[in-house]
Amino acid sequence: MSKHPNKPKPAGDSRLWGGRFQESTDAFVQQFTASEAIDRRLYAQDIQGSLAHATMLCRQGVLSDSELAQIKAGLQQIKADIEAGTFDWSPQREDVHMNIEAALTAKIGAAGKKLHTGRSRNDQVATDMRLWLREQIDQIGGELTRLQRHLIEQAEQHAATIMPGFTHLQPAQPVTFGHHLLAWNEMLQRDAERLRDCRARLNYSPLGAAALAGTPYPIDRQMTAQLLGFTAPTRNSLDSVSDRDFAIEFCACASLCLMHLSRMSEELILWASAQFRFVALPDRFCTGSSIMPQKKNPDVLELVRGKSGRTFGSLMALLTLMKSQPLAYNRDNQEDKEPLFDAADTMRDCLRAFADLVPAIAVDPATMRAAAKAGFSTATDLADYLVRKGLAFRDAHAAVGRAVAHGIEQGKDLADMSLAELQEFCPQIDPDVFAVLELDGSVAARNHPGGTAPDQVRQAAQAARQRLAD
Amino acid sequence: MSKHPNKPKPAGDSRLWGGRFQESTDAFVQQFTASEAIDRRLYAQDIQGSLAHATMLCRQGVLSDSELAQIKAGLQQIKADIEAGTFDWSPQREDVHMNIEAALTAKIGAAGKKLHTGRSRNDQVATDMRLWLREQIDQIGGELTRLQRHLIEQAEQHAATIMPGFTHLQPAQPVTFGHHLLAWNEMLQRDAERLRDCRARLNYSPLGAAALAGTPYPIDRQMTAQLLGFTAPTRNSLDSVSDRDFAIEFCACASLCLMHLSRMSEELILWASAQFRFVALPDRFCTGSSIMPQKKNPDVLELVRGKSGRTFGSLMALLTLMKSQPLAYNRDNQEDKEPLFDAADTMRDCLRAFADLVPAIAVDPATMRAAAKAGFSTATDLADYLVRKGLAFRDAHAAVGRAVAHGIEQGKDLADMSLAELQEFCPQIDPDVFAVLELDGSVAARNHPGGTAPDQVRQAAQAARQRLAD
Amino acid sequence: MSKHPNKPKPAGDSRLWGGRFQESTDAFVQQFTASEAIDRRLYAQDIQGSLAHATMLCRQGVLSDSELAQIKAGLQQIKADIEAGTFDWSPQREDVHMNIEAALTAKIGAAGKKLHTGRSRNDQVATDMRLWLREQIDQIGGELTRLQRHLIEQAEQHAATIMPGFTHLQPAQPVTFGHHLLAWNEMLQRDAERLRDCRARLNYSPLGAAALAGTPYPIDRQMTAQLLGFTAPTRNSLDSVSDRDFAIEFCACASLCLMHLSRMSEELILWASAQFRFVALPDRFCTGSSIMPQKKNPDVLELVRGKSGRTFGSLMALLTLMKSQPLAYNRDNQEDKEPLFDAADTMRDCLRAFADLVPAIAVDPATMRAAAKAGFSTATDLADYLVRKGLAFRDAHAAVGRAVAHGIEQGKDLADMSLAELQEFCPQIDPDVFAVLELDGSVAARNHPGGTAPDQVRQAAQAARQRLAD
Amino acid sequence: MSKHPNKPKPAGDSRLWGGRFQESTDAFVQQFTASEAIDRRLYAQDIQGSLAHATMLCRQGVLSDSELAQIKAGLQQIKADIEAGTFDWSPQREDVHMNIEAALTAKIGAAGKKLHTGRSRNDQVATDMRLWLREQIDQIGGELTRLQRHLIEQAEQHAATIMPGFTHLQPAQPVTFGHHLLAWNEMLQRDAERLRDCRARLNYSPLGAAALAGTPYPIDRQMTAQLLGFTAPTRNSLDSVSDRDFAIEFCACASLCLMHLSRMSEELILWASAQFRFVALPDRFCTGSSIMPQKKNPDVLELVRGKSGRTFGSLMALLTLMKSQPLAYNRDNQEDKEPLFDAADTMRDCLRAFADLVPAIAVDPATMRAAAKAGFSTATDLADYLVRKGLAFRDAHAAVGRAVAHGIEQGKDLADMSLAELQEFCPQIDPDVFAVLELDGSVAARNHPGGTAPDQVRQAAQAARQRLAD
Repeated sequence: MSKHPNKPKPAGDSRLWGGRFQESTDAFVQQFTASEAIDRRLYAQDIQGSLAHATMLCRQGVLSDSELAQIKAGLQQIKADIEAGTFDWSPQREDVHMNIEAALTAKIGAAGKKLHTGRSRNDQVATDMRLWLREQIDQIGGELTRLQRHLIEQAEQHAATIMPGFTHLQPAQPVTFGHHLLAWNEMLQRDAERLRDCRARLNYSPLGAAALAGTPYPIDRQMTAQLLGFTAPTRNSLDSVSDRDFAIEFCACASLCLMHLSRMSEELILWASAQFRFVALPDRFCTGSSIMPQKKNPDVLELVRGKSGRTFGSLMALLTLMKSQPLAYNRDNQEDKEPLFDAADTMRDCLRAFADLVPAIAVDPATMRAAAKAGFSTATDLADYLVRKGLAFRDAHAAVGRAVAHGIEQGKDLADMSLAELQEFCPQIDPDVFAVLELDGSVAARNHPGGTAPDQVRQAAQAARQRLAD
Repeated sequence: MSKHPNKPKPAGDSRLWGGRFQESTDAFVQQFTASEAIDRRLYAQDIQGSLAHATMLCRQGVLSDSELAQIKAGLQQIKADIEAGTFDWSPQREDVHMNIEAALTAKIGAAGKKLHTGRSRNDQVATDMRLWLREQIDQIGGELTRLQRHLIEQAEQHAATIMPGFTHLQPAQPVTFGHHLLAWNEMLQRDAERLRDCRARLNYSPLGAAALAGTPYPIDRQMTAQLLGFTAPTRNSLDSVSDRDFAIEFCACASLCLMHLSRMSEELILWASAQFRFVALPDRFCTGSSIMPQKKNPDVLELVRGKSGRTFGSLMALLTLMKSQPLAYNRDNQEDKEPLFDAADTMRDCLRAFADLVPAIAVDPATMRAAAKAGFSTATDLADYLVRKGLAFRDAHAAVGRAVAHGIEQGKDLADMSLAELQEFCPQIDPDVFAVLELDGSVAARNHPGGTAPDQVRQAAQAARQRLAD
Repeated sequence: MSKHPNKPKPAGDSRLWGGRFQESTDAFVQQFTASEAIDRRLYAQDIQGSLAHATMLCRQGVLSDSELAQIKAGLQQIKADIEAGTFDWSPQREDVHMNIEAALTAKIGAAGKKLHTGRSRNDQVATDMRLWLREQIDQIGGELTRLQRHLIEQAEQHAATIMPGFTHLQPAQPVTFGHHLLAWNEMLQRDAERLRDCRARLNYSPLGAAALAGTPYPIDRQMTAQLLGFTAPTRNSLDSVSDRDFAIEFCACASLCLMHLSRMSEELILWASAQFRFVALPDRFCTGSSIMPQKKNPDVLELVRGKSGRTFGSLMALLTLMKSQPLAYNRDNQEDKEPLFDAADTMRDCLRAFADLVPAIAVDPATMRAAAKAGFSTATDLADYLVRKGLAFRDAHAAVGRAVAHGIEQGKDLADMSLAELQEFCPQIDPDVFAVLELDGSVAARNHPGGTAPDQVRQAAQAARQRLAD
Repeated sequence: MSKHPNKPKPAGDSRLWGGRFQESTDAFVQQFTASEAIDRRLYAQDIQGSLAHATMLCRQGVLSDSELAQIKAGLQQIKADIEAGTFDWSPQREDVHMNIEAALTAKIGAAGKKLHTGRSRNDQVATDMRLWLREQIDQIGGELTRLQRHLIEQAEQHAATIMPGFTHLQPAQPVTFGHHLLAWNEMLQRDAERLRDCRARLNYSPLGAAALAGTPYPIDRQMTAQLLGFTAPTRNSLDSVSDRDFAIEFCACASLCLMHLSRMSEELILWASAQFRFVALPDRFCTGSSIMPQKKNPDVLELVRGKSGRTFGSLMALLTLMKSQPLAYNRDNQEDKEPLFDAADTMRDCLRAFADLVPAIAVDPATMRAAAKAGFSTATDLADYLVRKGLAFRDAHAAVGRAVAHGIEQGKDLADMSLAELQEFCPQIDPDVFAVLELDGSVAARNHPGGTAPDQVRQAAQAARQRLAD
């Protein structure tokens, strides 16, 4: 009747699904579709997941104790081989799952073939990725905390170091350097909280969703979830194999964090420039030029700034990937790994670089103070002073504006003008004006929660440290 | 000495900052930089914020009771004017804040000028945006819940309606339509949780950060935070005026949600096609063609699918906007509104369209069942059957694969083959095989949490409804 | 037999496709799907296209001379109404095409109904968009040329104005300001060439593709193409109605250009800062602060920098929109207009702002020169000098590096050291060294095409002007 | 006086710029900033550029003939070592340039040190990247042409194969499969033209721009440009080292092309589904499931569709990277390589996969025709027929719409209705109506350039082949 019953498998066919196929996979197609060079990075999670699955199958009576023992020993040996660099990875076996399963079966025979009972690569890879990302988030969280701790320390040291606060990159009002560093810490605190939410949301076990619909084998999804440290099993098998929200949400967290780091980098690059000289970076964090002997370049900061691009790109890649995909699993999803891996690596490395760098920044308080003094940064204080003398704010603002225009023409700051000179712009000005034109008074006056007064900075640093500890 | 003391303001200068300036703003620049056409949408929040600020200033003794009363009355009148369409918006007054403040001062005189004491447009706009977004999230959450409720209802009605489950858009295993709808519900449940996290994170009051450094006026930030329903004041003034994380995080939430809706749209478009005919959409949700009289197009779904693009674009726009910006406020940030407004509108409208549409979808169970029957979708069940007969899964898989190849050649499904025909591929097959090749048995067998068995679908729907209620 | 033959149209049904429909469109769906508020911007192109189509239909004998005359008069009247603001736009009539067609039929009766013969909204909107974008490109090209002309003029004036050339935002080597401005001109020159390529590629006429397959009416596509100034008709009807490459390619051009403008903005913002003071911007291009009387903010530049975000977002929106869309036309494509319109408006306005601003920038050559002198920017020249004295470059580089380290410690530049001091680092240094440490000699020495020598800058400006003229 | 003259280099310092530095680079910083693992891919272009540079230096008298000979021999040996896998790459030597230069100096001594005269890594890497991308474009162009050729061949074979043309994924009008394939060819033709423009625009030589300002050495930029096959030298040194437009423009080209391929993939996936069955894909381009024995999945197409995401991501990464960067070179730019490399690899491999696949697609004309017949796809033809009988199009449209509604109710197509049945909807219908309801007549009638008539398809295929040949 049919030629199929006796069809010989194509010679050397290592494919685990060749039954209905009448020709071998095209060589370029095999290379184009293979993912083991990328997803082998998930080997530890793949083995971890398999161990939990096997343990559950044994407790459910699908595997015998002896089969479980063989599987455990086999997988541990494979893990050791991989870590020793002696494992024989093969693109012909498509991906990390098939590579490990084939090696296991080669090692222990029939028991190895039974491991895949009641699961599919679709739920397996989803499990691996969640385990992997959970570990990454924990590592990244560690670097984030370290960086925050260093920022808080520097902020306390510089709670009263005065610098110009900028808006529009123009001197606006004097602030303290510690206050500025705590602004950075706030950004990172939100990043930490977003990461925590992302971790909680991903920590569900897809294992048992099988190919898409669940499985008729008597599995216990609660048990595998527990063995793997997941909060609970996921709630819908179709969603479990098609969902990649966790990867996208993580890339969004990483993009926000890299955006923050790009801003911090930009500021440090500016401050380390010959024109600002607010800070100096230690030589060991800089590189030179093969041509220009005088160069000391803030390369680390520039790279971090630039790496925001790749993280935004990963986010866009994953959103595009999932757009319009019908359920449940489509091969498109194989493309989820590189953006996710890259976003995690980038975020971790950039945070590490910053955590190393921040405590080593050398601050130049004198230059900062001189810059604050030079930029009419207490003009608002003068306007506020005039309000206290009875002017409406809008009228005070106009008078000070004219004084500033005069100062620019004459090349002198407000504090350098004589009383008579100042009174030309507003007769209400008295000799007590010079106190408000002075930097320390200006910052000390902003003495409410969130304000730049040194006392507030010290309290804010203390509270920030407490939050970290919690 | 200087020409400034007596400098006449340029004629008709409505700028509130003209003091130091010696020439009027260029006409094109004024138009290029004005934002009132966009940000007037924040009028209600701007007034709400001003009322809270004025109330606080009064309690702190900065405003008298009578000034507060005038301000309240003035602002309420302005709100009424705006809502009646009689307010005179002017781009010369730059933005929503200046338009309202100028109108207030015109109405009530000196008290109006005092309202701006201890704040700046920088903290004001940040406050307005957070208030606005919080309201939007609440509205969006309402539509989301409505859509989820309809999905759960449909899922319960179709807990036992069998359709082909697809992977790679090829029939994979039979699933129930209710199970599929609950997969959608899972996606939306995550969207709801992300929105909730986003709302909690944005609900802090920037008021009192003033321009960037706080203010020397005796403000009470806790009080304004409370009056406006915020959890607490923000913790750092520089961060408060430069932070736009909340807008980006919201756009990331919206992008994920629109991605989900694009997938749901894609599936409905496929299912409503002449080739699938799994569902029919009611005429009132479709449009026709001005040329082709037979056309009934799923326009709403196509638009929703397409609108994922604009939401991803808004996310990218905001990330790019913030990349590398030094602190604190830069005018770049004026560009934050259109992407945020558009993302919120798009998310709300698309959810509303879906919430209206879902209960009106007409399902064709017979066509679904026929499709499930035709696509060899119980081949896995046959392999599992052979495993129970003692074959290793891999060998069972190969045998079934050959049977499928034969079926394709002969144009008959597995269930249509005779016992003898099936036994050619595997002699272990017995007459009891036909029960496993049958669709209802296949789905019923996947009877564990998250599986497609009708009982599980009913329980899952019940639990989902409970979560919504909580 | 059927209820359809006598089915009354739903009351007030203005839909042009209601025949097969049994219920009216849902009110929210009508609003959700209507596009006239957006696409009415294409009215002039829509009328232009209709006039060409009608003229062709008349020459082909489909319309009579009198019908053509009525159509022409009617469309011209409608155009006048629209431009006078008296046209009655209605979202019930869905889009610009239906609004105009309905108005025409209301005006001239039966002849109006015939206008749509042999075309569809699908080819009509594609035609309108190409015509619209072609006009926009021409306008944008005008602003681009104007900006380039101003850059070239400023470059010529500052062909010998020395400033520090930066790499890594650290002083690298002295360059001339004119050379720097011509670097900007090169960026814009590529933008102009890309626009030109984009224009050439879009300038084909989709008219005649009809709904998707062409039309059985005896149309002459060559004629309409010619009447509308297109190079030729498009070559495939399916592609004609589904292609939006032209919009994406334009958004890519705009994104590159806005990226360039963001870089130019960033540099001008830096240069106008209190720390650099290389340039001053005229008051009329700046705005102030409502709080801080001293502020003069480079708002225009900040807005342009920020607007790069919306343009990148539009590009991403359109790429996402088209991803995975099956042919031919899908309603998703209605979403193509806002990103395209916004990208064109943004590009035009930002170029205009820059073209207005560039000639008004006040340069401070003394500050630039002082900065160049202070940053060890001739260290490379010293190394090159030592090479001429016989050292290997790598050894010369190391010696100069040590001299720089010494200079940093002592707070003196290379040119300020004594001969004896310099000779400590390298005994080969002779009294002639001071010529090479001098700025003018350094820039003059880079005297090859593309180099910063004033002579080269003047020649490059001349050549750039010539290219613009061609 | 200073400690620098005699400062010993840190032990084992292989840095070529350590002179002014007082501490070794931090170990993590070295790893974080090293790029050789990525940019070693440019080795051949780096050597090609060095050979041209050395040849020019020799002709200009900077190198002797013997030095040039040593350099040539050394570089060729290094190239051979790299290709044999025996080259000792070191991250301590930062990048491909330093690795090769260090190896050259180790091999040939002093002459090796002279090679870098008059250039810098800044112009060197820009040159390498342009050479590399030019080669890639040529390879990609080859695959593109191959794919186009196969499409044209298939189109000719199926010039008269009728399928339903879809709009909104609903049957719209019958078209020929050949016409559809030529629509794909049009997309690819634009991709080819964009690539050609991109290639022309990048083909300029940055060599000689040196670090940023040019060089005082007597270089001949015209000569190196010519030796490397560039059209001419670039025109401005600052722009030459800071410009990455070529990479972005290429990524935009790749994104458009991948968007096209995603659409073609989507259509083939649909057509290969059990519901459409318009085409079958050969086994060798498909893969199976390890669980579901019946599965034959269009993995290659799904991967291509998904890979659009990574390409859009690369484009966004590069745009973000360059946003707001001040001139000239910043280390951010090191991040330019991975997105560019990935976009080129992705585009080439996806085109190759399609070029292999297209000629192997098995078309099922009978199923296509049946689908065209079933979907009321000649309803427009009926309306046009009624126009020829004297009805206004809008009235004809309404009558046919009612006939279609009747057909849906009765489950019969227009061509299956009796004359009497049809006349119920419009008495003007005569027995000659059945010719227009027939598919072949419908497509043949669309017989103008760009239309779907078989004659037009054949002519269009011929013209397309001619364009490819030119």
